Amino acid sequence: MSTEPAIPSPFVVTALPGFTPAIGHLVCMMTYTRNTTLRAVEGLGMDDLDDRLDDDANSIGMLLEHIACLEEAYQLDTFGWEHTDEDAERWRRGVNLGPTAREHVRGHALSHYVERLAHVRARTLEAFARRDDAWLQVSCEWWDGQTANNHFKWFHVFEDELSHRGQIRLLRRRLPRRDG
Amino acid sequence: MSTEPAIPSPFVVTALPGFTPAIGHLVCMMTYTRNTTLRAVEGLGMDDLDDRLDDDANSIGMLLEHIACLEEAYQLDTFGWEHTDEDAERWRRGVNLGPTAREHVRGHALSHYVERLAHVRARTLEAFARRDDAWLQVSCEWWDGQTANNHFKWFHVFEDELSHRGQIRLLRRRLPRRDG
Repeated sequence: MSTEPAIPSPFVVTALPGFTPAIGHLVCMMTYTRNTTLRAVEGLGMDDLDDRLDDDANSIGMLLEHIACLEEAYQLDTFGWEHTDEDAERWRRGVNLGPTAREHVRGHALSHYVERLAHVRARTLEAFARRDDAWLQVSCEWWDGQTANNHFKWFHVFEDELSHRGQIRLLRRRLPRRDG
Repeated sequence: MSTEPAIPSPFVVTALPGFTPAIGHLVCMMTYTRNTTLRAVEGLGMDDLDDRLDDDANSIGMLLEHIACLEEAYQLDTFGWEHTDEDAERWRRGVNLGPTAREHVRGHALSHYVERLAHVRARTLEAFARRDDAWLQVSCEWWDGQTANNHFKWFHVFEDELSHRGQIRLLRRRLPRRDG
């Protein structure tokens, strides 16, 4: 299948060809979320992506890397994929942000982040196409000793992205003006 | 029905008693979103709620009012409810934020916003309980001449809240420290 889901309008949540109905709904919401994230960073240069509002802040580039890492971490968790120690280290850094991420996630052009996000998303959609709505309901023990199901976990992936998209919009409006 | 939906764990998205399946999924996501918004503002005083990061910023109180107003605006749109001119004026202010909202939305304790959010949400859940998954697919012309359905519109209500929840978390960490 193509990695671009066939969504009839950006403003519908509906069943999609190639996915079971509730997975189709998820894909619509995840795609809308991603498109608004990409719109929020459109045209940013490397300096903008590395800029931090203050010493405690994450850069917009760090937030984009975090979004990709969180999705990879939930691929691992819900699809049961193998991973290397190097993968795990990258995810730990990206998921937790903080000083180590500040040091490692900088000096990239926007295209680096956009391609990384697209690569991760394509693998998610391929895996979704091979699963069904019953799989969404598969559950395990999770935070606070409570139960989580796969449907929640993938909601969490995009709800966390939306939260950071809001932060990116706020940070972008406060970037230093640059000449040129 | 009770206004507290019977969700078996905060970390599941699943069908719920009293709602058709896809509406149940929406209710799970909207409830998780709201709980995290409320956690993000827990314990804030009036000064915190009115504080603005800079001259262009919205206060946390304004963002909470905006969240309530957007939900009311989509009740009107999707449930076809009657409203007064005064309602419309309040929604316009709250949905658009900006200078007029800055003037009107201040000087309230946290309980004011929390009660207002709960009041609006209870009306949404009552209306959801009387509708079904076919209603979610009802569509109309929307932004950019494209089609939107009710499922998207209610996704938009919570995706906008999540975006502002992210901003609230960022703003909260930058509030001036207050004595006492």
